[in-house]
Amino acid sequence: MGKRMGWADGFIAVDWGTTNRRAYLIDSAGERTDEFEDAKGILSVTQGGFPDAVAEIRGRLGDKPLLLAGMVGSNRGWVEAPYVPCPARIEDLAQHLVWAGEREAIVPGVSFLEQGRADVMRGEEVQLLGAAAAGTVHPTALVCHPGTHNKWALLRQGALETFRTVMTGELFNLLKQHSILGDFLGGEVSVNDAFKAGVQVGLQNADLPAELFTVRANVLLAQSKKEDAASFTSGLLIGTDVRIGLAQPLAAQVVVMGRPELTSLYAAAIHEAQREAVELDGEESFLAGIKRIAQGIGK
Amino acid sequence: MGKRMGWADGFIAVDWGTTNRRAYLIDSAGERTDEFEDAKGILSVTQGGFPDAVAEIRGRLGDKPLLLAGMVGSNRGWVEAPYVPCPARIEDLAQHLVWAGEREAIVPGVSFLEQGRADVMRGEEVQLLGAAAAGTVHPTALVCHPGTHNKWALLRQGALETFRTVMTGELFNLLKQHSILGDFLGGEVSVNDAFKAGVQVGLQNADLPAELFTVRANVLLAQSKKEDAASFTSGLLIGTDVRIGLAQPLAAQVVVMGRPELTSLYAAAIHEAQREAVELDGEESFLAGIKRIAQGIGK
Repeated sequence: MGKRMGWADGFIAVDWGTTNRRAYLIDSAGERTDEFEDAKGILSVTQGGFPDAVAEIRGRLGDKPLLLAGMVGSNRGWVEAPYVPCPARIEDLAQHLVWAGEREAIVPGVSFLEQGRADVMRGEEVQLLGAAAAGTVHPTALVCHPGTHNKWALLRQGALETFRTVMTGELFNLLKQHSILGDFLGGEVSVNDAFKAGVQVGLQNADLPAELFTVRANVLLAQSKKEDAASFTSGLLIGTDVRIGLAQPLAAQVVVMGRPELTSLYAAAIHEAQREAVELDGEESFLAGIKRIAQGIGK
Repeated sequence: MGKRMGWADGFIAVDWGTTNRRAYLIDSAGERTDEFEDAKGILSVTQGGFPDAVAEIRGRLGDKPLLLAGMVGSNRGWVEAPYVPCPARIEDLAQHLVWAGEREAIVPGVSFLEQGRADVMRGEEVQLLGAAAAGTVHPTALVCHPGTHNKWALLRQGALETFRTVMTGELFNLLKQHSILGDFLGGEVSVNDAFKAGVQVGLQNADLPAELFTVRANVLLAQSKKEDAASFTSGLLIGTDVRIGLAQPLAAQVVVMGRPELTSLYAAAIHEAQREAVELDGEESFLAGIKRIAQGIGK
């Protein structure tokens, strides 16, 4: 069986990130019939180990062609899939697949470059353009995609026109795991008064590396409760992030797409900034996008 | 020999921080006659281990009274020395020594609290107020004290009136040691074009958590050289820090006090912001301050 053949009988879609992977079996009618998620992100795969890691996926979901998206296409992944530049549509992703084998295709990431400002994404583009193609977001929308590296993506007429990355999730994890604030950040983050207070500081104030230290000083001098520190700090970082994101050109709709536990925090922060955001499940958007890309194979 | 006796024959001054300690033997004429520095910061001393750690200092420098400053007076140190509130003078520190033993005194830190904004320092106050008392800084000066947690301190008529902490050094170390930027930040930081470009971004732009990600994207898309990333990132963080610091009320003089390898970076960034700063050695300022505090003991 040659390259680009046999996809009409169904395929396996994989969202393969740095630390996790999610695999879905899609049948010939486009229905998701089986799936699994595990912690075998690309950093856990040894050099030369991808054929085995792929065989393991087929062992669990069946001997089907594979369509892979995310960091698996990075220079640390299986085979590097060069970035497609903005403006990018779902068809551009489909046209620039990189074939790691006869029946294994990798979706490229997207790059942005303008007046010396560079940015890159790898994985979110399938969700963003999948939702645009499926019509679950407005063709002209500002989409916030929280995660380790939050992306603010501007869609225009269904194309990904520009985007900007904010390192919010990674900064929070660094502070929690390795900083002098770590002792204070073990608690659960929720949308409470402390979170909203942090959001307001981040929205109004550009002094993030100073405001972060107040988390410690306020507890030491009994100005705030230690159990509020995690929510305040999360709010401070997300408020800063939302200030940066909403400075983009106005769009018809603001959408937050991703894992529900993160989209709810961002939607609350956007509400504090006097805008309203629609929350969308990233998994459904990924499936919408990856199925469209698969439809183009073999045609 | 009772408490507060025997200091006229000389004493040992210790600047005892989180990860390092520096000890100086000061003779009866106020001259430094011996010293050492080692990595036995307070985090390396077990609970109950301070008497032994102090005995070791005396074993190296002689059986003299000890005057201890820095994190040794924190809740993780030997005995907690409550903060003295702003405005604080060198005499206020001397009057609020906490005695850990008959011949061992601990200098308190300083706190600031106003309209819900809290801040704390522990260690820098001896240098700041020592330099003010010795006349090596103008009585009305804005003093920048770089380190893990940079302090912007406003002196008025020789008193520490207000200060603000910026977590610049710790953020740089977190990014270098634990973040996705770590691969790029191994190089040496110097005052070159990349550093100045980073400073300008930090001075003009409030989008730090987004600008940080451009360090990675710019290298991936060949917009900048990997070997410039450490200097650019240091400049971005220090430029942000200087923007925050220079927003304080104008002072007659801007001073950068501390370790020369750090003061030179901050002085260069302040120059980029169209101000000129005087660089001062933190060690000399510490000795000036600690000797003044010792003079008040037993009087």
